Amino acid sequence: MRAAVYRAAGQVVVEDVPDASLGAATDAVVRVLRSCICGSDLWAYRGIIQRVSGSRLGHEFMGTVEAVGDEVRTVAVGDLVIAPFQWSDNTCPACQDGLQTACSSGGTFGAPGTDGGQGEAVRVPQADGTLVVVPGGLAAVGTELLPALVGLTDVVATGLHGASLAGVGEGATVAIIGDGAVGLCAALGASRILGAERVILLSRHPDRTEVGRQFGVTDVVASRGAEGIAAVRELTQGLGVRHVVEAVGTPESWEMAMGMAREGGSIGAVGVPHTMPQLPLLEAFRHQLRIGLGIAPARRYLPDLLSRVMSGTLDPSPVFDLTLPLERVADGYAAMSARRSIKVVLA
Amino acid sequence: MRAAVYRAAGQVVVEDVPDASLGAATDAVVRVLRSCICGSDLWAYRGIIQRVSGSRLGHEFMGTVEAVGDEVRTVAVGDLVIAPFQWSDNTCPACQDGLQTACSSGGTFGAPGTDGGQGEAVRVPQADGTLVVVPGGLAAVGTELLPALVGLTDVVATGLHGASLAGVGEGATVAIIGDGAVGLCAALGASRILGAERVILLSRHPDRTEVGRQFGVTDVVASRGAEGIAAVRELTQGLGVRHVVEAVGTPESWEMAMGMAREGGSIGAVGVPHTMPQLPLLEAFRHQLRIGLGIAPARRYLPDLLSRVMSGTLDPSPVFDLTLPLERVADGYAAMSARRSIKVVLA
Repeated sequence: MRAAVYRAAGQVVVEDVPDASLGAATDAVVRVLRSCICGSDLWAYRGIIQRVSGSRLGHEFMGTVEAVGDEVRTVAVGDLVIAPFQWSDNTCPACQDGLQTACSSGGTFGAPGTDGGQGEAVRVPQADGTLVVVPGGLAAVGTELLPALVGLTDVVATGLHGASLAGVGEGATVAIIGDGAVGLCAALGASRILGAERVILLSRHPDRTEVGRQFGVTDVVASRGAEGIAAVRELTQGLGVRHVVEAVGTPESWEMAMGMAREGGSIGAVGVPHTMPQLPLLEAFRHQLRIGLGIAPARRYLPDLLSRVMSGTLDPSPVFDLTLPLERVADGYAAMSARRSIKVVLA
Repeated sequence: MRAAVYRAAGQVVVEDVPDASLGAATDAVVRVLRSCICGSDLWAYRGIIQRVSGSRLGHEFMGTVEAVGDEVRTVAVGDLVIAPFQWSDNTCPACQDGLQTACSSGGTFGAPGTDGGQGEAVRVPQADGTLVVVPGGLAAVGTELLPALVGLTDVVATGLHGASLAGVGEGATVAIIGDGAVGLCAALGASRILGAERVILLSRHPDRTEVGRQFGVTDVVASRGAEGIAAVRELTQGLGVRHVVEAVGTPESWEMAMGMAREGGSIGAVGVPHTMPQLPLLEAFRHQLRIGLGIAPARRYLPDLLSRVMSGTLDPSPVFDLTLPLERVADGYAAMSARRSIKVVLA
C-alpha cells in the first residue's frame, strides 16, 4: 500500500509500504477515507523535535473497517469509524478517568513500528477501545460530512479540551492564544459547546480570523507580546480574562497567557511546550493561577462530538482550507509549514 | 505599646513602638488577645528572603476593637474580631471573586509601615472588609476557644485552600506534602470540611503525625524523595494520588508532588515557592496535571470556618503546641525554626 513516510526535516515522501494487517486479536484494519496533517506533524518537519527516519506519518484518520481480530466485539467489517489520534483500551484506570491519552495499553499512530494515518490503511490496536462507529455508515452521513468527522480525531477534541482545562463555562469570557486549527477549534468548543459568551482570538491572519468568526470568535486582537496583553486587558476592564487557552507552547505564548490571565484565572494548555521547558512558578503563584495541561483524550470527547456533527449543531469543517490526494501530502506539509494553509485534509 | 520587631536574620526583639492608632476613616484599632508565629515568618528569620530591618512582625491575630474610624459600619468598639492575615476591602472585583488576597486596596500586616500582629495592638485598614466579628464576643466563646479562632486567621484557611486547589471532594484520596501547621490544617480541611476519605501525610515527626491523626490523617509516609513517592504509589495501586497538597514550596517537595500525582491529577500549592523558581512544564504536560497555586484568601473562608469552630465541629487548636507571652516571642521563633514547636500562639 502507499503511505507517507518521514525521511528528515523538510522531507516527507509517499512510498510503497507493507499492507496494513492484523497483528493481534484485538486489532482492526481500517481503510482510510480521510486523514489530516496535524500542527504537531510540523514539529519534526521543521526540525524542532527529532523523529525516526522512515517512520510513518499522520495520526488523524477515519475510514472503513476492513478486517477485525478474533476478540474484537464492537466494530465490524464495513463499519465507518473514527479513530482518535491515540489508541486506548478504554478500560484501564486512566481510561476510566477519561484520560485515554494516559492509557496503559495506549500509543500514538505513526510512532515507529506502527502505521500512520497518512496512508491507504492503518492497523488499529485495541480496536474496541479505540474506534468510534458512525451510526448508519457512509449512507447516513454522505461524503460531504467526512471532513467534519475527521476533524474530530484530534483538532476539535484538542481545542475543546483546552477550553475545558481553562474552565470555560456558560457566559464565560475566554482568550485564545494560537490561531492554528487547534486555537480555532478551542473557539468552536468554547462558544458552541461550553457556552462562552465572549471569545477573544489572538490572530493577525485574516483567513484565520474569518474561520474564527464562524466558530464564535467575538473579538480579535492582532497585536502580540506586551501590546497584545494590554489589548486583552483593555477588553476586560483592565482585569484580564478568567480563562485562557494556550494552544502554541512557546515562551512567547506562555508569557502572553500569564500576562493576560486575571488574578485567580485559569490557563488551559494544549500546545506541547517543546520549547518552553520551565514555567515561572513564583509568578504563577503570585497571580494565583490555575493551570491545566495535557494531550487531549480525544476518545473521551468523540461520541458527544460525533452526535453534534451528525445532528448539524457542530461544523468544524471550515478549518480545512486545502484538500489534497495522499500522493501530494508533501505539498500539504509545505503549505501548512509556510502558514499558507490552516489545515490540510487528504482525500 | 510593645511589639515584635525584625532586626536581622535570627534577630527578633520586642520593643516600645508608637501606639496603634487610626490613620484613615476606614481603619479600626484592635487590641490583640491572641496572635501567632507563622511558618512564613521564618523565611526572613532563616535568611531565605530579605525583610526590612525594623519592620513589625506577625500577621495572624485576633482581639477586641478599641477604636473605629468614622466610616466603619460593620464593626464596633468592644467587638471580638478575627483578622485574616491580609486586609481587603471585600468589594473590589478580586474580592468579589473570593480572591481577597488580590484585593486592589489590600496589604499584609507587618509590611513596612504597618503594625504587625505580634504586638499589643494593630491598626487595621479597610476594617469593614477585613474584620470578622465573633457573634456574642468573649462572653460567648470563652478564652479556651481563642487558640482555635486565631488559627483561622491564616493556617486553617491556607490548609483548606490547598486542599480546595487540589480539587479534594467527598470520598477523595489526598496526599499532603509538608507536616507543618499548614500541611496539618490541609488534612483538617480535606477530611473535616471537604469530605476526603483517605488522607496521606508525608511526615517523619511523631508529634506532627499525632496531630495529623487528630485532623483526619489515615496514612503516614515517613520516607522522602523517590522512596516517598514509591510508598504513596504503593498505597494507591501504583497509580498515584488524584489530589496532592504542596505545602512546602521547595524543589524537593515539588518533585515529590509531581512524582506521586496520578495521571491527570491535581496539585494544590500553598507553599510559597521562594526556592523553586521554575516548574518543569513538559513533565507536567506529559502527566496531564492540573496545578492551582496561591496565597489563601483567608477572608473568603473565615465566616464558614468561624461558624464551624463555634458549633464545635472544627477544632484546629492542636496545631498550637507552645504558648508564650509576647515578651518571649524570640523563643517562639527559635522553637519553630528548630522544629521543636509546630506552631506558637502568643497569649
